[in-house]
Amino acid sequence: MKDKLQLMIPGPTPVPESALVALGRHPIGHRSADFQKIVARTTEQLQWLHQTRGSVLVLAGSGTAAMEAGIINVLSRGDRVLCGDNGKFGERWVKVAKAYGLDVQTIRAEWGQPLDPEAFREALEADREKAIKAVIITHSETSTGVINDLETINRHVKAHGEALIIVDAVTSLGATSVPVDDWGLDVVGSGSQKGYMIPPGLGFVAMGERAWAASKRSDLPKFYLDLAKYRKAAEDNSNPFTPAVNLYFALEASMAIMQEEGLQAIFARHDRHRRATRAAMEAIGLPLYAPATCSSPAITAVAPDGLDAEAVRKVVKSRYDILLAGGQDHLKGKVFRIGHLGFVADRDVLVAVAAIEGALVELGRPPVQPGAGVAAAAAVLQG
Amino acid sequence: MKDKLQLMIPGPTPVPESALVALGRHPIGHRSADFQKIVARTTEQLQWLHQTRGSVLVLAGSGTAAMEAGIINVLSRGDRVLCGDNGKFGERWVKVAKAYGLDVQTIRAEWGQPLDPEAFREALEADREKAIKAVIITHSETSTGVINDLETINRHVKAHGEALIIVDAVTSLGATSVPVDDWGLDVVGSGSQKGYMIPPGLGFVAMGERAWAASKRSDLPKFYLDLAKYRKAAEDNSNPFTPAVNLYFALEASMAIMQEEGLQAIFARHDRHRRATRAAMEAIGLPLYAPATCSSPAITAVAPDGLDAEAVRKVVKSRYDILLAGGQDHLKGKVFRIGHLGFVADRDVLVAVAAIEGALVELGRPPVQPGAGVAAAAAVLQG
Repeated sequence: MKDKLQLMIPGPTPVPESALVALGRHPIGHRSADFQKIVARTTEQLQWLHQTRGSVLVLAGSGTAAMEAGIINVLSRGDRVLCGDNGKFGERWVKVAKAYGLDVQTIRAEWGQPLDPEAFREALEADREKAIKAVIITHSETSTGVINDLETINRHVKAHGEALIIVDAVTSLGATSVPVDDWGLDVVGSGSQKGYMIPPGLGFVAMGERAWAASKRSDLPKFYLDLAKYRKAAEDNSNPFTPAVNLYFALEASMAIMQEEGLQAIFARHDRHRRATRAAMEAIGLPLYAPATCSSPAITAVAPDGLDAEAVRKVVKSRYDILLAGGQDHLKGKVFRIGHLGFVADRDVLVAVAAIEGALVELGRPPVQPGAGVAAAAAVLQG
Repeated sequence: MKDKLQLMIPGPTPVPESALVALGRHPIGHRSADFQKIVARTTEQLQWLHQTRGSVLVLAGSGTAAMEAGIINVLSRGDRVLCGDNGKFGERWVKVAKAYGLDVQTIRAEWGQPLDPEAFREALEADREKAIKAVIITHSETSTGVINDLETINRHVKAHGEALIIVDAVTSLGATSVPVDDWGLDVVGSGSQKGYMIPPGLGFVAMGERAWAASKRSDLPKFYLDLAKYRKAAEDNSNPFTPAVNLYFALEASMAIMQEEGLQAIFARHDRHRRATRAAMEAIGLPLYAPATCSSPAITAVAPDGLDAEAVRKVVKSRYDILLAGGQDHLKGKVFRIGHLGFVADRDVLVAVAAIEGALVELGRPPVQPGAGVAAAAAVLQG
């Protein structure tokens, strides 16, 4: 049905009406006092979301631009970095690091499995010369629905003493706690079309004091992604290059909604949706791709044994106007992914489950007990 | 008056209602067939605007990101480049080139004056070893309202035979003809908040075949700005990284309006507004910053002798709800700039002139003959 699409992909995520209305306002001058007020306000909101008093900078760009900026601002040519890789995004940061001539040491886990914090501990302890300058890790791996144990890995990084931690929080920020100051996270990258509940086009980079100190030594070439320029402009509530003015309008509006809900309530909601979705898939008899112990609060990947995952997606879209995500790369056709990130209510989870049940019936593989998925989800949601 | 602001700065420019409505639509999945259709459609529209059959790629980023992408994709470390510098943006491309370790030879002109094509001819002819790999030039210099003679400079570049031409068309594209294929322009960068008539957040790079050939040899590090990734994705009407979906919606809508008006009519309108604005300022007795022979169709800089340009701007804003641009860097307080770029009608030019006249009265320096500015503008507009 035209205009009826319900997004349940890991981004773009659903956008609240007030943010859409703000987005559609006429732009104003980005060097005006009125816009400075918006920069000041959104900066406070971003610090609240990141649980930091430090810098959170806004780029016109995607989450990849934000992560690349984080990496290339604190490192220098030939620096050794330790990259976690257990999915498409972990893989991507390895590629970024290599594109800039960094000396990359990769710690891998199978897709669908979490990174082993012990492997990081061993590699960091073995590095007696302190050659490792940064550890790059994807917190919530969007491609597999696995959340990595950032807290423990970060503890090992802190014990190393020299390495910075650079975190891809693209699908964890706004879904689970990423306490930048408490944990001492040095660089945290994210993107607007995720937990922020607005359309794509803004990237965010939080930078701690140690990251800024490292940035002074960094010799990797950059201009548009040179964060020192953004920091300097931010002192005047401004931007070094023309910012995406209308996305700022939307950001201010969506973050006001988030602040009203409260951080703990937002995290609890995402956790509830994670558990409800998983319980439903189990009740329907569809295998989950990631173990419960490391399942992302933002996305649940389902591997419908013996069924084409793309066929499930197609029915869910055409008959129920719900967009699920497919599998990426070698997972294409093997998994579908249910996004429950951002502006998602209990109702949305219930109907996604109902639609998947309906698709299974249509595809000739009805659940053993029709309605069991919805009932299981409802039981979790009702607490 | 709240919500009454009329933008007459060189960006963001006014946005048509249909583009704002499109912008405020709920996003859709950027990997969906529906979005592929939008990419296909906007690609055709962009080719039409650029008068090319070649690639026009879309980045989530500002015009600076687009220009940086253009530069770093076709050059290699140590390459010699010839940069034109007669304003803030010319200066910026010199900085970008230096940030990447290029060997920069600068051809300067005073702010407010055009680059001398002869200086390019001489430098290019003197380069018998063909060490110059690119000429970087700002077509319309937004900071001064000067348009450089791209056609002639480009002819000298073509005579050189080796150097590519990289053009900042940020405030010329959509205001005057930039015939990419006819002139053989290799790289052309621009941004959405200008002639495109939509809010900031998209950067555009047109790349010709010679530029693509050079890109294969380029060794400058890049990932987010690696245009080969965009080209590959474009073959499938897709993007390598999450695109700014809603700005695409707006782009499709605004370019439909542009196509209805037609390229020649758009260029004629901008030229008319340039002439009307200049005639009005002369009739009021306010000195123009750029000579008529090289005045930009997008922006007119005015240097109100003995009057604080910022004071004029302030009255025009507070009393008439019209935003003019101030002077940049050392021109701050010395000039104000009237943007007549993009979605600007004859009416907008008339009222901007009237408001400036009103401000002069309020600042105690009334025009010798009140109303003369409006009359002069009207005479030009009526042809």
